[in-house]
Amino acid sequence: MDNDCLFCKIANGYLPSHKVYEDDICIAFLDVNPTSKGHTLVLPKKHTLNYLTCEKNILNHVLDVAQAVGQNMITNLGASGINIISNVGKDAGQSVMHFHVHVIPRYSSDGLNLSFKPKQITDGELLKICDSLKK
Amino acid sequence: MDNDCLFCKIANGYLPSHKVYEDDICIAFLDVNPTSKGHTLVLPKKHTLNYLTCEKNILNHVLDVAQAVGQNMITNLGASGINIISNVGKDAGQSVMHFHVHVIPRYSSDGLNLSFKPKQITDGELLKICDSLKK
Repeated sequence: MDNDCLFCKIANGYLPSHKVYEDDICIAFLDVNPTSKGHTLVLPKKHTLNYLTCEKNILNHVLDVAQAVGQNMITNLGASGINIISNVGKDAGQSVMHFHVHVIPRYSSDGLNLSFKPKQITDGELLKICDSLKK
Repeated sequence: MDNDCLFCKIANGYLPSHKVYEDDICIAFLDVNPTSKGHTLVLPKKHTLNYLTCEKNILNHVLDVAQAVGQNMITNLGASGINIISNVGKDAGQSVMHFHVHVIPRYSSDGLNLSFKPKQITDGELLKICDSLKK
């Protein structure tokens, strides 16, 4: 574990949390500044920076647990939707530099707004970008 | 495939798209209304409603491809961050009812704002929610 990492401390039991799930590989606990009722973070116990740096078997397990947690929010909290979000890097809004997935239950009248404003783009511009990403 | 599903039509080649990746199980193509330059959708070819209904082996593969696409955005588009998002249900902002993952490249001065406003919550309230989610 990284001794300077908040989520390492929580995941390894050195700081308290409201755990909703735990196994050898990962932990899920309630966000203490929830976006909505039940907002949960799922993360690996082993330190890794973000979604892109996470080894595949751990990534798969964390995201499977996120699926189970999300289903549980619908069954046991009465959520009518879920946002599953992982932010990579400060410019994307990542605030703790230990890979984590937000599982955010949504309710029909919660008043939250996730939508970004989409941009207009030409077919030519899309083609150029597509070429870059196929590299 | 579901003949009434837009993403089934794209994934199976009945409608054109700007593909950045394709294999037997999934496809990744540029969003035509991009949030940012390079905004890509990754989705399974086989129809399934959303993240919660997707079978695990397909879910894992789609999310592994999202990892590779995200890395590619940093390497080839100069992105400094990535948002990986999947919305489940209309109340969470899902607009096409075929499971898909948004991979949104972020840039230091893109002016986008993903942040929800966090709520204040008491420890007692957190405990109650935690009990519901441990069921």
